[in-house]
Amino acid sequence: MNQAYRIERDSLGEVRVPADALYGAQTQRAVENFPVSGLRFPRRFIEALGIIKLAAARANRELGLLPPDKAEAIEQAAKRVISGELDDQFVVDIFQTGSGTSTNMNANEVIANLASETLGGERGSKLVHPNDDVNMSQSSNDVIPTAMHIAARVALENELIPALLRLRTSLQEKADAFDDIIKSGRTHLMDATPVRLGQEFGGYASQIDHAIRRLRTISHELSELALGGTATGTGINRHPDFPARAIEHISDLTGLPFREAENHFEAQGSKDAYVAVSGALNTLAVALMKIANDIRWLASGPTSGLAEIRLPAVQPGSSIMPGKVNPVHCEMMMMICARVMGNHLTITIGGQHGNFELNTMMPVMAYAMLESIEILTNGCEAFRTRCIEGIEADRERCRQLLELNPAIATALNPIIGYDKAAEVAKKAAATRKSVREVVKEMGLLSDEELDRVLNVREMTEPGIAHH
Amino acid sequence: MNQAYRIERDSLGEVRVPADALYGAQTQRAVENFPVSGLRFPRRFIEALGIIKLAAARANRELGLLPPDKAEAIEQAAKRVISGELDDQFVVDIFQTGSGTSTNMNANEVIANLASETLGGERGSKLVHPNDDVNMSQSSNDVIPTAMHIAARVALENELIPALLRLRTSLQEKADAFDDIIKSGRTHLMDATPVRLGQEFGGYASQIDHAIRRLRTISHELSELALGGTATGTGINRHPDFPARAIEHISDLTGLPFREAENHFEAQGSKDAYVAVSGALNTLAVALMKIANDIRWLASGPTSGLAEIRLPAVQPGSSIMPGKVNPVHCEMMMMICARVMGNHLTITIGGQHGNFELNTMMPVMAYAMLESIEILTNGCEAFRTRCIEGIEADRERCRQLLELNPAIATALNPIIGYDKAAEVAKKAAATRKSVREVVKEMGLLSDEELDRVLNVREMTEPGIAHH
Amino acid sequence: MNQAYRIERDSLGEVRVPADALYGAQTQRAVENFPVSGLRFPRRFIEALGIIKLAAARANRELGLLPPDKAEAIEQAAKRVISGELDDQFVVDIFQTGSGTSTNMNANEVIANLASETLGGERGSKLVHPNDDVNMSQSSNDVIPTAMHIAARVALENELIPALLRLRTSLQEKADAFDDIIKSGRTHLMDATPVRLGQEFGGYASQIDHAIRRLRTISHELSELALGGTATGTGINRHPDFPARAIEHISDLTGLPFREAENHFEAQGSKDAYVAVSGALNTLAVALMKIANDIRWLASGPTSGLAEIRLPAVQPGSSIMPGKVNPVHCEMMMMICARVMGNHLTITIGGQHGNFELNTMMPVMAYAMLESIEILTNGCEAFRTRCIEGIEADRERCRQLLELNPAIATALNPIIGYDKAAEVAKKAAATRKSVREVVKEMGLLSDEELDRVLNVREMTEPGIAHH
Amino acid sequence: MNQAYRIERDSLGEVRVPADALYGAQTQRAVENFPVSGLRFPRRFIEALGIIKLAAARANRELGLLPPDKAEAIEQAAKRVISGELDDQFVVDIFQTGSGTSTNMNANEVIANLASETLGGERGSKLVHPNDDVNMSQSSNDVIPTAMHIAARVALENELIPALLRLRTSLQEKADAFDDIIKSGRTHLMDATPVRLGQEFGGYASQIDHAIRRLRTISHELSELALGGTATGTGINRHPDFPARAIEHISDLTGLPFREAENHFEAQGSKDAYVAVSGALNTLAVALMKIANDIRWLASGPTSGLAEIRLPAVQPGSSIMPGKVNPVHCEMMMMICARVMGNHLTITIGGQHGNFELNTMMPVMAYAMLESIEILTNGCEAFRTRCIEGIEADRERCRQLLELNPAIATALNPIIGYDKAAEVAKKAAATRKSVREVVKEMGLLSDEELDRVLNVREMTEPGIAHH
Repeated sequence: MNQAYRIERDSLGEVRVPADALYGAQTQRAVENFPVSGLRFPRRFIEALGIIKLAAARANRELGLLPPDKAEAIEQAAKRVISGELDDQFVVDIFQTGSGTSTNMNANEVIANLASETLGGERGSKLVHPNDDVNMSQSSNDVIPTAMHIAARVALENELIPALLRLRTSLQEKADAFDDIIKSGRTHLMDATPVRLGQEFGGYASQIDHAIRRLRTISHELSELALGGTATGTGINRHPDFPARAIEHISDLTGLPFREAENHFEAQGSKDAYVAVSGALNTLAVALMKIANDIRWLASGPTSGLAEIRLPAVQPGSSIMPGKVNPVHCEMMMMICARVMGNHLTITIGGQHGNFELNTMMPVMAYAMLESIEILTNGCEAFRTRCIEGIEADRERCRQLLELNPAIATALNPIIGYDKAAEVAKKAAATRKSVREVVKEMGLLSDEELDRVLNVREMTEPGIAHH
Repeated sequence: MNQAYRIERDSLGEVRVPADALYGAQTQRAVENFPVSGLRFPRRFIEALGIIKLAAARANRELGLLPPDKAEAIEQAAKRVISGELDDQFVVDIFQTGSGTSTNMNANEVIANLASETLGGERGSKLVHPNDDVNMSQSSNDVIPTAMHIAARVALENELIPALLRLRTSLQEKADAFDDIIKSGRTHLMDATPVRLGQEFGGYASQIDHAIRRLRTISHELSELALGGTATGTGINRHPDFPARAIEHISDLTGLPFREAENHFEAQGSKDAYVAVSGALNTLAVALMKIANDIRWLASGPTSGLAEIRLPAVQPGSSIMPGKVNPVHCEMMMMICARVMGNHLTITIGGQHGNFELNTMMPVMAYAMLESIEILTNGCEAFRTRCIEGIEADRERCRQLLELNPAIATALNPIIGYDKAAEVAKKAAATRKSVREVVKEMGLLSDEELDRVLNVREMTEPGIAHH
Repeated sequence: MNQAYRIERDSLGEVRVPADALYGAQTQRAVENFPVSGLRFPRRFIEALGIIKLAAARANRELGLLPPDKAEAIEQAAKRVISGELDDQFVVDIFQTGSGTSTNMNANEVIANLASETLGGERGSKLVHPNDDVNMSQSSNDVIPTAMHIAARVALENELIPALLRLRTSLQEKADAFDDIIKSGRTHLMDATPVRLGQEFGGYASQIDHAIRRLRTISHELSELALGGTATGTGINRHPDFPARAIEHISDLTGLPFREAENHFEAQGSKDAYVAVSGALNTLAVALMKIANDIRWLASGPTSGLAEIRLPAVQPGSSIMPGKVNPVHCEMMMMICARVMGNHLTITIGGQHGNFELNTMMPVMAYAMLESIEILTNGCEAFRTRCIEGIEADRERCRQLLELNPAIATALNPIIGYDKAAEVAKKAAATRKSVREVVKEMGLLSDEELDRVLNVREMTEPGIAHH
Repeated sequence: MNQAYRIERDSLGEVRVPADALYGAQTQRAVENFPVSGLRFPRRFIEALGIIKLAAARANRELGLLPPDKAEAIEQAAKRVISGELDDQFVVDIFQTGSGTSTNMNANEVIANLASETLGGERGSKLVHPNDDVNMSQSSNDVIPTAMHIAARVALENELIPALLRLRTSLQEKADAFDDIIKSGRTHLMDATPVRLGQEFGGYASQIDHAIRRLRTISHELSELALGGTATGTGINRHPDFPARAIEHISDLTGLPFREAENHFEAQGSKDAYVAVSGALNTLAVALMKIANDIRWLASGPTSGLAEIRLPAVQPGSSIMPGKVNPVHCEMMMMICARVMGNHLTITIGGQHGNFELNTMMPVMAYAMLESIEILTNGCEAFRTRCIEGIEADRERCRQLLELNPAIATALNPIIGYDKAAEVAKKAAATRKSVREVVKEMGLLSDEELDRVLNVREMTEPGIAHH
């Protein structure tokens, strides 16, 4: 209603800011300028901003640029930003200035106001100045790319990769548990030579294993930080030793090694590393799409599907069909994958629109990346705990389906040749008899030979039947 | 802490539901099953669900299937869902079952509980039953696609298209205002024959105009509703007259014409119409990307860019470079476009993964679609009011840049031929003289002829100089 | 080896052109400048270029700008370009100048040389001048967008839409032929209420029907031609009546109505219409992906899949598994769809990179569009004639799978309520008994009632069992 | 007309094959089955197939499975496939069976026929059998993925990476040559603090450098070969030692290390490694898009653009505007990038559609990947030799644009604070005076101080002016 305001000034003039807001004029302008989506920078990003401001203040103090009392006050405020307790003060929409300057200034203003109060000043007093003190030695143009790298790397290393490790373990456990269940292989969706259910799950585990290695490798790209480039990559207005010192603090604070960008013009003008990381998430999404799709198909039925496995019943499946249970976590995962692929395109588009000394598509790229990491993390956890871990095999069903599978005629190739074996397989399929029966009817092999050649367990391992 | 629960039952057993929750067992299971993103179905979607439940109750009452008191109670509850006051009761994550059953049941449970209370029952009593009464004649499999169409169509017709109409008007007003400003054309970014600044803005207005027409045409695809297909498209468990009656109520409630799907198997098994609408949004995003990119380039400078126009200064541009003003709303718009393109891919991926009688990628498709419409709507508004409307031209700068533009030699073609004109143009560029000067030096045309041929205003209209 | 050359000149100097080439200096430069992919503009595009040059010559003659003998010679040469006999003279790579100027000049040079020879001049003599005569009243900047629209519209209307009409008919014929085959519906891949196989194919036919309507609507966007905009959209160096006349000739030559672009700045600066058409192809690809995927699943087996239908055996399926037959045309179609989606992204990216008066991503956009139309056309033909038309149903298999499908308990809802019906369905699934048996065991309904309620044929039509 | 045929048989019956064809029945069926695009597997892929067949024959001989005379004959034929002389015998469309079986059989048939002839048999005699002998120990399901990996890895290592190394060197040479040219930086396209032109090119060189490292890392994923998995990943019908031996031969033949897949189910059921490699190409495309776009902008003009550099004039730019020269190789590159991004999506879509033991989207994935590598390779070469190497800087223009750039006020921050510096910058921009002049007018600093602080060369290096 009659909300209380205070008046602040920036270089464009006066702004009315909510009296109790910790942010100031520039943040308020941005709130008014960008009433678009309601989407905000996520927790990991705000945390990263706090880490940068804390590390910068420490470095600036060490270099004699910032008086100890100011530095101390800034550091205390930055710690509160890191903690998450001030997230509601980060009020600017994702769809804002492409440099993320509004959000950097939001951090600067919140910290400056808290620090000013610590030192006895009022909110908006600029006793601790958002630009001159909190943003000292920095520019949005190096801070925002730096926060993008820190936030994504921390989320990857501390959240997604651990979730994937657990998922891989679960899949491998199923691979072990199902190792002796022999079943029809399927290629082109058609009956193929026998496999073991455990081999299929072993394949999924290996997909996740490769995905983890890919992410660990690509995560190193994120260890290069733009910090130190300031306005245009040249490092104007920062001490020569600033980046090394500040980044050492960042590494300490996150427990992850970071280093100065090899080239500051690349680090600010391009977002190639982000596009690369997004590519690895896209690959992971493709892998999970395959796995989730396979699993729901294996569980399809109960009477009109493949029904080789059963998924845990976690909720009633239908509002109209009573008793129905659906592969909801597979579907959840497939939708997550579709979102991650969409985010990858957003990031790819964003990566293209850098010009000269700055990419100005950063906020949406950061958001899309962190969203992808978060939903993949949580999705893998839910998928694992509520679906994978509870999967049971229907051994008898697997056996039945395999019984008349004509593809086991493949094992005859080395003995009677592909062309003759094709005759057998076609006759078996046409008459719905087993390959064994047909071979016997055709008088091609003795019972003894058949026992040796048509051993479905042996068909699931490398080797040639008659050797 | 010691949060109060009530115990509810569904076909899988008992569930503890927060005591004050309006939703019930199935919603609660879904909350626990899908702790993924924190993303929820947006307002427009919940509104559409309420509209469907209201329309269905009316139709069921008219057909004698639902007793008047139950119908009345359901209708009252559905109106509260429509109003938005119960949005906080819609608590299921977007990444859930691919049919959206959990969210349909969320609506059914909230309405059933409210209606039960109206009729004197307790929450969870199923006095009004979520499946048998609220979901009567329906299935998630027709309700969710119906809600997707209603929500997107309402958002398109009532929000995005009006915003685009206003944007087109603003662009056209600039086209009129700048109609007499002659400037260098640019093709391949290189100097080309003269154009008027107003013509450029007229091109943008026409792009938006075509986009509006595309959206209006495609919006009709959304008028086909799946309602009536129930479980698998066959219409089992619904009265033959149900769809016609229910959809008439939906048309009344929304003020937009809807009709029964031509084919219910298509309507539930595919999401082609959604992919098509998303394609039109993608086209709009491409158009806006071009417009926003052009405008920021035209405004680039002040000293090292093109600087033919000036954008309103809406916020300080840089945390380090004092006095800098940036084309922030162009960037905002470009990021919105990148997001819309990503959403289009998500929807395209989703559309592929329908199988047989149901597409099970619906929640993420619905979310991506409604997000795109919302950010395009709000983005166009902000772009128009805070950027386009305040654009000013720098007439003098336009004149200066045109002065030595060698491309005006083009007008010489019909008189001296392309090859000779090329000589002139190259000499002009090399010597940094005007085309006029060079022609005179080369003795090709008289002053009188030059006056007639090298009239830059006339070059901005169809015609051949010497005719 | 000692290939013979002739020397030609353009504004940059001398060029050695193969002696027997019909093209000239600028084409030769482009050949040398762009040794990239080996991809060339396809037939439909070269035909469209010929049509434009023919129409332009006629219009220029009518307007008194081009002497009759030159016009006649140009027209004869253009007809040869249209015919396809000169396609091997169009030698410039797709990855060239973004305006397609090299290919426009290729056409201009080929036609100029042929026309010069007709009038008694030598190749390279420019007796008929490639720029001044053949390109009269035109610019690459309006010619190439015009050719893009003509080529795509002709291919759509004369090739893709007819192929889709035939595909729809085939699918509808299968829908009719399979109308009495009752089978399990499947939602979430799980057993659902019964459907008829014909209904499924009817859904596919309806998807194609909608796709046809979408393409017919969107095709009208292509009827707007950029011709008349010349260099920058202003129409410099062309007669005011040129576009109307030339476009009338184009409409005559193609048998399709075309008209002048509403706004020439839009028509040359943006490629929105192309992005929109590509969006409709993307939607078609999504539809075909669903259809092809469903069909291969329905045909999966013979022993370990769904096996409700059989596809024609068109080739041995495996190099190792004898007798295997695979759904190869479904896979062919799915790969085509993946390509079309990729092409859609290429076109979407291309559409973004227009600047000011020209989009300079045109050749790759044209190529991607025409490739998509061609492979969709040919793919639909092969899919129809070699797969769809030969599909046979396995009526007995459909019956068997349906027999124990627990979802038919859905029909009990209106009588015993969802909760009780769920008990029945779960018991049926758990005990592998039929719903009928379980209901009888539980003493819920009489035989007479069961006969009336559990009629699976009636479940495939709208209605409530007990009404 | 009366083309001569021979009759061949396969398991489906008789086929008429062109009398002079080296291929046989199955290839001919595929030609007839898939008349789609005219696109064929590229050279690198056919070479890889030849390598696999040669390596397999050697391994089979060593293992005593294939008689020496047959092995020798197969090896000789395979070498001819490797050489490229038989490419015209590979006649199957890309849009075929999703396993590529038709193309594997094409190789098997061509080699079998050649080998049969060597041993005195007729074409089609199967004296050397395409399945039993040439395809011995293999299946299309392991051969095609293996060929995909070999072909892409060879193309990456031998073609693309060397081209990128040369491009990086060229960019670095320009970075060195332009190291002393001071100019306006640009962020958000607006005047920013000074940079050196060489720094910008150094940024581009670093982008390419990172891209090379990314590709080298990801290339190792391709070193895992599916060979040995045969039909379903189990290795049925191949000797336990076959993969190790065959792959050692492959490594020898290519000069690149390859190894057996860690998990054969992953290797055949998924194509994750391909999606990952495509992701790295997508990142490269994003990088090149940025570089090419920057360069054409820097070269824009001559009078109405930035004009800080000049590109070589390689061809006349316009069919209508005489003397125009355009940044055609930048545009060529941008179109290549758009194609690569589209191919990445095609590969991403393809990667999703594997099911169980086989991905059946392989041919289109292979094609898209090899097309991307080829056009990137050739595009980088053309871009380098015809554009980058000839770039010249306009030192004077750079100086002029920088002169009034208000962003150099940034250097005043540490002395007079951001707020005061903003006043200076705004006044400078408004009055079109230099920052120096304004500071003097405002009496803020002495001439001496100004000399020290406003040194634009120093602003292009890290440091704080007054320290």
